[in-house]
Amino acid sequence: MNIDMIRAAADRLKGHARRTPILTSPFLDEIAGRRVYVKAECLQHTGSFKFRGGWSAVSALTDNALKTGVIAFSSGNHAQGVALAAREHGAPAVIVMPADAPAVKIENTRALGAEVVLYDRATESREEIGDRLSHERGLTLVRPYDEPQVIAGQGTTGLEIAEDMNAAGVTKADVVVCCGGGGLTSGIALALAAEAPGLRVRPAEPEGFDDVTRSLQSGKIERNARLDGSICDAIITPQPGDITFPILKAHCGPGIVVTEEDCLRAMGLAFERLRMVVEPGGAAALAAALFHPDALDGDAVIAVATGGNVDAAIFRQALETLT
Amino acid sequence: MNIDMIRAAADRLKGHARRTPILTSPFLDEIAGRRVYVKAECLQHTGSFKFRGGWSAVSALTDNALKTGVIAFSSGNHAQGVALAAREHGAPAVIVMPADAPAVKIENTRALGAEVVLYDRATESREEIGDRLSHERGLTLVRPYDEPQVIAGQGTTGLEIAEDMNAAGVTKADVVVCCGGGGLTSGIALALAAEAPGLRVRPAEPEGFDDVTRSLQSGKIERNARLDGSICDAIITPQPGDITFPILKAHCGPGIVVTEEDCLRAMGLAFERLRMVVEPGGAAALAAALFHPDALDGDAVIAVATGGNVDAAIFRQALETLT
Repeated sequence: MNIDMIRAAADRLKGHARRTPILTSPFLDEIAGRRVYVKAECLQHTGSFKFRGGWSAVSALTDNALKTGVIAFSSGNHAQGVALAAREHGAPAVIVMPADAPAVKIENTRALGAEVVLYDRATESREEIGDRLSHERGLTLVRPYDEPQVIAGQGTTGLEIAEDMNAAGVTKADVVVCCGGGGLTSGIALALAAEAPGLRVRPAEPEGFDDVTRSLQSGKIERNARLDGSICDAIITPQPGDITFPILKAHCGPGIVVTEEDCLRAMGLAFERLRMVVEPGGAAALAAALFHPDALDGDAVIAVATGGNVDAAIFRQALETLT
Repeated sequence: MNIDMIRAAADRLKGHARRTPILTSPFLDEIAGRRVYVKAECLQHTGSFKFRGGWSAVSALTDNALKTGVIAFSSGNHAQGVALAAREHGAPAVIVMPADAPAVKIENTRALGAEVVLYDRATESREEIGDRLSHERGLTLVRPYDEPQVIAGQGTTGLEIAEDMNAAGVTKADVVVCCGGGGLTSGIALALAAEAPGLRVRPAEPEGFDDVTRSLQSGKIERNARLDGSICDAIITPQPGDITFPILKAHCGPGIVVTEEDCLRAMGLAFERLRMVVEPGGAAALAAALFHPDALDGDAVIAVATGGNVDAAIFRQALETLT
């Protein structure tokens, strides 16, 4: 896992992934007490950064592997990213999703041509189901984060942040990233270490699901006590990955833990001030940037808004936090 | 009013206005029956394309005029665009706004440092109030659309559409633009006539406020019967402008009239499929592209999503159109 893989992924993604904008608002700057730059990965194809990793992994496969097809397990965003990447490569895709994933994510994954297999998040292991189907049908498993080509794809987000922040004259700042298994966070960390070493990655996690924050504190991989019951479904994973964690440990500053209420408030402000739809898990970094200023250093902060696939019912809750 | 003014405005806007992305979704393509490209001006500074015209006009003023200040009348988006442009130029700004404008727009305009003067849309003339204050205080009036430097600024949207559609290989298509007084529509029409003559502008308007559509039909300026009672407040104006109408007449195809319900449904789909917040008046073009396919020609359509400044209450109505 190295910067050259990220640069190679950027070449493969060119013309396929969207180069997402960095959004700002004087109103958000005022709340945060510093300049706030929001990397808008909600506007990526399929509504999250996951399309980058999906495209990177699928585009690296042999023609034979593409013909047989791919399989992925995902709470929803990785599912859609892999499904669309597979479809655009003409490859069949099977996606293993938790039965309690937001309806819009399940529906979108099916509409993108994938076969969806549902499982119970509390009693079944998605890894086991994925491994079994992978072996039975000869499908190539595209892991959601602990997979070098996926990390390389997500890392292209970091190359863009480095370039845009350099152009904006921001050379020293914290870059807050919503963190599940650490694929995006480690990819961005590697990219910034190479391209913008003054920008330091800070993982953001929801309260009660702060495995990465605790792992960074203790120096070894820590697990979450539970895996359900959060509106931040997109970034709830059992523990940091075996590949991602050493990278996080080498390059990231301390994690920042936010509440679900913080995430809903950040979603409301993204609606009002950036005119962007962010899902709860995708709002954790912006929540940290806006409501935890003391945890951050410098006169600027970059927050990665990682996804925007949210049901209307949850979005209404976010709207209620306004005024 | 010519293409050189638009190119000069583009030079002045460089590094100040955001180059907004063009968003797509396979789900929207399916609804429309053709490729749909959405120019995301909701993501412009202050949440609408109006910042372009505001910046263009303010940046063209003399130092003395900047020192005395500017005045504008606006239902809200032009207000914010001029207020921010003035603040960034260090110029005082007075904004005359209708008392029934969305609260968020009034509040934002004040927060951007402008002095806000409210008037009754049904009984008072904003033009008269603007003229009076302009004379009393020596302020330079920045008209919302019938103003060459404003049209030039809005026209920079058209330069970007021409460039991006050329890169996407789309050389022949309708470009649907939400149309009030015609500043944006005429600016885009001039830019496309020069840079992408196969792209034809089509004004989109809400039912009951279709002055431009009727004016294009009759060949002379027609007025709206009323000026209030629409959720599409951003694009409700008495009639096309004296400067904008001849340009519209020379370059645009027939207007397309949409219902308020169309706009709410388009807002819901922009939320779900593009993760973008669009206001009712800013959704008229997307509504035409999605729900009036028979009014359009070609296998692609470009819709300009002109603004995203919408109160939560109205946005909830849009969410309700999703099942």
